Amino acid sequence: MPLLVMKFGGTSVADLDRIRNAAEKVKREVERGYDVIVIVSAMSGKTNELVGWVEETSPMFDAREYDAVVSSGEIVTAGLMSLTLQEMDVPARSWQGWQVPLKTTSAHSAARIEEIPRENIDAKFAEGMRVAVVAGFQGISPEGRVTTLGRGGSDTTAVAFAAAFDAERCDIYTDVDGVYTTDPRIEDKARKLDKIAFEEMLELASLGAKVLQTRSVELAMRFKVKLRVLSSFEENTENSGTLVCDEEDIMEKNVVSGVAYSRDEAKMTLISVADRPGIAAAIFGPLAEAGVNVDMIVQNISEEGRTDMTFSCPVNQVGRAEQAMQKAKEDGDINFGSLIADTDVAKVSVVGIGMRSHAGVASQMFQALSSEGINIKVITTSEIKISVLIDRKYMELAVQALHDAFGLDKAA
Amino acid sequence: MPLLVMKFGGTSVADLDRIRNAAEKVKREVERGYDVIVIVSAMSGKTNELVGWVEETSPMFDAREYDAVVSSGEIVTAGLMSLTLQEMDVPARSWQGWQVPLKTTSAHSAARIEEIPRENIDAKFAEGMRVAVVAGFQGISPEGRVTTLGRGGSDTTAVAFAAAFDAERCDIYTDVDGVYTTDPRIEDKARKLDKIAFEEMLELASLGAKVLQTRSVELAMRFKVKLRVLSSFEENTENSGTLVCDEEDIMEKNVVSGVAYSRDEAKMTLISVADRPGIAAAIFGPLAEAGVNVDMIVQNISEEGRTDMTFSCPVNQVGRAEQAMQKAKEDGDINFGSLIADTDVAKVSVVGIGMRSHAGVASQMFQALSSEGINIKVITTSEIKISVLIDRKYMELAVQALHDAFGLDKAA
Repeated sequence: MPLLVMKFGGTSVADLDRIRNAAEKVKREVERGYDVIVIVSAMSGKTNELVGWVEETSPMFDAREYDAVVSSGEIVTAGLMSLTLQEMDVPARSWQGWQVPLKTTSAHSAARIEEIPRENIDAKFAEGMRVAVVAGFQGISPEGRVTTLGRGGSDTTAVAFAAAFDAERCDIYTDVDGVYTTDPRIEDKARKLDKIAFEEMLELASLGAKVLQTRSVELAMRFKVKLRVLSSFEENTENSGTLVCDEEDIMEKNVVSGVAYSRDEAKMTLISVADRPGIAAAIFGPLAEAGVNVDMIVQNISEEGRTDMTFSCPVNQVGRAEQAMQKAKEDGDINFGSLIADTDVAKVSVVGIGMRSHAGVASQMFQALSSEGINIKVITTSEIKISVLIDRKYMELAVQALHDAFGLDKAA
Repeated sequence: MPLLVMKFGGTSVADLDRIRNAAEKVKREVERGYDVIVIVSAMSGKTNELVGWVEETSPMFDAREYDAVVSSGEIVTAGLMSLTLQEMDVPARSWQGWQVPLKTTSAHSAARIEEIPRENIDAKFAEGMRVAVVAGFQGISPEGRVTTLGRGGSDTTAVAFAAAFDAERCDIYTDVDGVYTTDPRIEDKARKLDKIAFEEMLELASLGAKVLQTRSVELAMRFKVKLRVLSSFEENTENSGTLVCDEEDIMEKNVVSGVAYSRDEAKMTLISVADRPGIAAAIFGPLAEAGVNVDMIVQNISEEGRTDMTFSCPVNQVGRAEQAMQKAKEDGDINFGSLIADTDVAKVSVVGIGMRSHAGVASQMFQALSSEGINIKVITTSEIKISVLIDRKYMELAVQALHDAFGLDKAA
């Protein structure tokens, strides 16, 4: 029988009514002839409550106990979803991570999936079960302890199951109806995309479009899992939502697919760094150790053996970055004049696979920003993305200007 | 190292403060040199919430899913307790039922413990763990699914662990400071017992003294586990609480140890039943099938081949009992004149191992009730217990009169 994976996030299973609503969507697919693996998150708010208890009990918690506590929310939803389906005469049963077993590494609270053996679940499908309801986000370590995959890990669970069971598609039900050209709260002409390439989704996901967890997109790309994002709260058809798929499956495309942003960035500049081989490692090593997520890096033209080094990081990591740099200076590992932190910047990016074959996207982008009087502070580019750092107060304006400039309100 | 089992009920782990309070008690025992197995219930109210969700989702629920959902509360408490102990520098880890593994039958939601292999937990004690925090109430079936032991099952979990690990004692921490001669809310002269025999506790537990689950007392008696009931909310010493133990370990005893009661009883009488061999089976078979918990049974003197049959059951089962009897009459399985239900009765019992060697307890009991003008409707006796059914309005008076008559306010 063809198999579908359907994943429901926290808001989609927030209470018994919503669980019933989700179960109806599952039943419809069963009636269409699919066997279904359903991946559920905890009821919304549940995981935060559990995390709060753990952190209050033990600020430097044992991650193994954290995982045991925090994974309990998904167990509840899986059981309730299974009962709801049974009430609708759909043969279903729930599976906890260790029952599958979903085998992971021992990296508690950020474990990676190693293997999903099919035997146990396949045996139940063979006996007539039509829906396996699996608690998302959790697995079992080689030591036999409960692990979790990190926040948003249920998306990753879903894609991993789709890969392991050769699913026809992996449908991610959430509270939005798909992936948009940009955030509709900022640009009301934002348009839902019918299709988007894995690579683009990856850039958008890591740039702050919170629809899908980055790892789940990576995994889908690697295993060629067709991923669809769609709304739990609407009647869906075959063509609802946004399909995340291989580039080749997308016939017509705009050069740019979307505009992403990240509001809370900071730009840090080390002035007059003694320029020598290995200086970048001497700077960014200590920052990584201090847990600073460095994003963009720019090195200015060096004069007389000294250079300015600029990097960006989340604004709430500025203190940590400053400490790490001062310490490295005191230890004599690096030498610089001063450290300037600009905490009022935001990042705006345009993303599109079409850039590969179209020249001039960068200049079109800079032109659009310039004509709005927006000054660009830092630029970085990749094959399918151009990002700029600008004053935070211009962020909305920049998003709108770029959305217009690349004609994103109109389909290709 | 000597080993202790400590069990904390729902009110003892109701929030993070109470968990900390319980953990301090555990730490004290560790400092005294004990390895400890802690059994925890769910935070109070949690299990009821989960049961409510299951019942609302599916009134005739699949007990396997019920168990999966309802057992999640204990997982949370076990993790939090372990983290709290770790914060106090006590080496601890949590264990879910399947991790131990606590092996049970497949009778979901009322499973029986089959085996508790010691290897996994012993291995961790050998590595330096001082406290194993075990989620109570749950186990794993031969099919690999989560089972629960029925409400109050954490007491049973605790005693089973004490038996499996040869614990020196099993301490049940609860919201009362021990077992009383009767309910202090009814008789303010009620006195806490320092010791009580297993058999007496069993009678008191099944008679409605809700301190311990009946099955846990049976198990403790069978495996000679010293069981102590004591308060989570007091500073305890070696002699706190009530020790439930072998009869031989109790030197001085009153003839009667306690007065128990059960408020919501009903007395049902089948008038003029055709008396023939097998008539009792014909009556009580259908009642059992209808789920009526028949307690006391009295058959009156038969006249001319007909007899009156009286039995008691919980008052909320009267309707079910009436239906079952009418149906049996219509089916021709039994023949009776009428069925009279008295729904305003209560049961009062005196319990004491001393009765075995002391004659005259029954007459002393009847005398005490009679001198208060309380009419006795039904009497049943066992080796260590005498129970009477009386009008409910006299229940408190009867408890007080019996408590006085047997001098229970004074120690032996």
